[in-house]
Amino acid sequence: MTNTIRTQVGILGAGPAGLLLAHLLGKAGIDSVVIDARSREDIEGTVKAGIVESPAAEVLAESGVSDRIYREGMKHDGVEFHFDGQAHRFDFQELVGKSVYLYPQHEVLKDLIAARIRDGVTPLFEHTATSVEDAESDKPRIVGTTAAGEPFEIVADVVVGADGSGSIARIPVVGSQQGGYYREYPFAWYGVLVEAPPSAPELIYSRSDEGFVLISTRDQHIQRMYFQCDPLTDPTTVSDAEIWDKLQAGVEGTTLKQGPIFRKDVLRFRSFVAHELRKGRVFLMGDAAHTVPPTGAKGMNLAFSDVLWLNQALRSFFATGSEELMVAYPENALKRIWKAQHFSYWMTTMLHITPDATDFDKLRGLGELALLTESLHAQRYLAESYTGWDYGVDDWR
Amino acid sequence: MTNTIRTQVGILGAGPAGLLLAHLLGKAGIDSVVIDARSREDIEGTVKAGIVESPAAEVLAESGVSDRIYREGMKHDGVEFHFDGQAHRFDFQELVGKSVYLYPQHEVLKDLIAARIRDGVTPLFEHTATSVEDAESDKPRIVGTTAAGEPFEIVADVVVGADGSGSIARIPVVGSQQGGYYREYPFAWYGVLVEAPPSAPELIYSRSDEGFVLISTRDQHIQRMYFQCDPLTDPTTVSDAEIWDKLQAGVEGTTLKQGPIFRKDVLRFRSFVAHELRKGRVFLMGDAAHTVPPTGAKGMNLAFSDVLWLNQALRSFFATGSEELMVAYPENALKRIWKAQHFSYWMTTMLHITPDATDFDKLRGLGELALLTESLHAQRYLAESYTGWDYGVDDWR
Repeated sequence: MTNTIRTQVGILGAGPAGLLLAHLLGKAGIDSVVIDARSREDIEGTVKAGIVESPAAEVLAESGVSDRIYREGMKHDGVEFHFDGQAHRFDFQELVGKSVYLYPQHEVLKDLIAARIRDGVTPLFEHTATSVEDAESDKPRIVGTTAAGEPFEIVADVVVGADGSGSIARIPVVGSQQGGYYREYPFAWYGVLVEAPPSAPELIYSRSDEGFVLISTRDQHIQRMYFQCDPLTDPTTVSDAEIWDKLQAGVEGTTLKQGPIFRKDVLRFRSFVAHELRKGRVFLMGDAAHTVPPTGAKGMNLAFSDVLWLNQALRSFFATGSEELMVAYPENALKRIWKAQHFSYWMTTMLHITPDATDFDKLRGLGELALLTESLHAQRYLAESYTGWDYGVDDWR
Repeated sequence: MTNTIRTQVGILGAGPAGLLLAHLLGKAGIDSVVIDARSREDIEGTVKAGIVESPAAEVLAESGVSDRIYREGMKHDGVEFHFDGQAHRFDFQELVGKSVYLYPQHEVLKDLIAARIRDGVTPLFEHTATSVEDAESDKPRIVGTTAAGEPFEIVADVVVGADGSGSIARIPVVGSQQGGYYREYPFAWYGVLVEAPPSAPELIYSRSDEGFVLISTRDQHIQRMYFQCDPLTDPTTVSDAEIWDKLQAGVEGTTLKQGPIFRKDVLRFRSFVAHELRKGRVFLMGDAAHTVPPTGAKGMNLAFSDVLWLNQALRSFFATGSEELMVAYPENALKRIWKAQHFSYWMTTMLHITPDATDFDKLRGLGELALLTESLHAQRYLAESYTGWDYGVDDWR
């Protein structure tokens, strides 16, 4: 027998977008149920990237999720670009008076889950949605099964797909799981997790003829490093020695602190924006709505913009019955989505050399980096985009 | 019998670069001879584009060529971008405190030729160079014939190739007329000259799904307008009615002032930088050294940078015998050349839609324009590049 749950907002996906939306709706007295196929342990235990923009950190702290990001996150006031044998630091504080926080996404998830539990609305983990039904009615439903094999359905006034890049909520919204604007890049990142202290106080983005390298960090004990690779690379076929060679070659002048490599993976580079973000009472947000390549560190920060616009629309709907802001949600969210897509594309194309690049392309690229790093205005343009544009939505407090 | 002319600097090409170099060298007491295959009438009578950057206008006026640019040129304090149904003005004065001058290149040439004649060193028109010999000796030679079929040679201490995109001076320098870094674009501009008053007070750059349109002006009576076309378009096959349709479609909201179209041409888009800018005593500058697509209006302005660097090097050489700055000329000139190549590429790719662009590419492009026009820093970055970076060479006065 199917277990039926009734709520105002059914949310697919206990990622940063879904959980933050549930939290903000809860502050306005709107009930929601968040489900996720994974277990809490799995969600909290998967080590993930995390550059949190200033406006995103503000939302987490000021909405009452947690101020742990300010206490435990590493405040980064700049990044370095290495190219053409030079190192150039973008001093974010000096350029635009802002910083970013290095605070891994799984820590954000721990904070968000703790806040849901604290508020008495624990997400339903190990609940796998199989479809979203009745999207265009005023009682859309999420249908699925629990880990124990029991069927369930969530009957809601609104359903939100925050179920990531493999979103099943896309099916009612755009007609298929793939329907979107799309770009694939002819390269990927080979990423490692290393047990070692940080090699540099800030992130290093390096562009050289050998390819892109990024030296990033999780905390004082675990480091995250990447080098550009073919998208078809099998991560298990690259030896630790080769990995250190590739990484070290990208950052002349900095001696990497080595340690045991305990994870190796290949990150494909894709840009995606779903053809539609809304169908009737079903909405898409976060990775379900868009994917950006990781170079601009925009993923979660951009998802929060969707959350703020949708939270505003749903608060208005449940308070007044007006669908106006729900109808306007796609247009409002898409403005930032396409700007973030451009910024991510810009950072990606500026810092990588494609396999088919001509010598003209390579030298023109160095011309761009020279222009960028010599121009105060250009540096400010990059810094304001990297540290995060204001969200432009105020009623989330 | 070959007429032999001896001078310190033999200059191929009476374009802006060659003539300005002769003028600046003359101020330092260095003799030069400028030759050109064309007649003076032909050179002065060919209507050409002309956005002169502030620093370039300063060089023309302050070096004593002429201050006519300030008296008769049209000072433009901004440009407009049209995209996605919006018009955005870049206010150069407000953004960076600079302007550009709309002063056609053939007027610059009239000033430069008048200055040579005033100084008693009339260029040798209708002198066609056929080769440059003995590049690596200390007496390189320009060999050619006059319009009357008489052979001549110019024996010099230094030879400068300022002979444009079909440069023969490239042969001794890089080994062929084509040897360079190269990019071709999959579109061209269909350009017309029109007898009509200006349609807008400033230039309009328009990007739409129908393609790029540029509304430019020569003076109060003659207008220059362009629309994006296939590079293989035969200019004679497009009717006046089709031309006005294409132009008007690009600038909704502005009604173009029509008039008789008296020239139609197709401008190919190429980016080129010669593999070498110097071999022994032979130097390349201006279009002989590099070609940029016209979107950034950098051609002549960039050529002046080469002139200033080479003028400095030759003044030093003739004063002290030291070749140090001559050897450094390529490196010094190339810094700005690659920055200008990038700026021209940026303006071109941002404002055109390529025939193979996906919907993602088009929307990402609109995201870039939204980001650019909403960010004060980004607008300043564009404005400082458009109005002209300081040349960074001071000893030309």
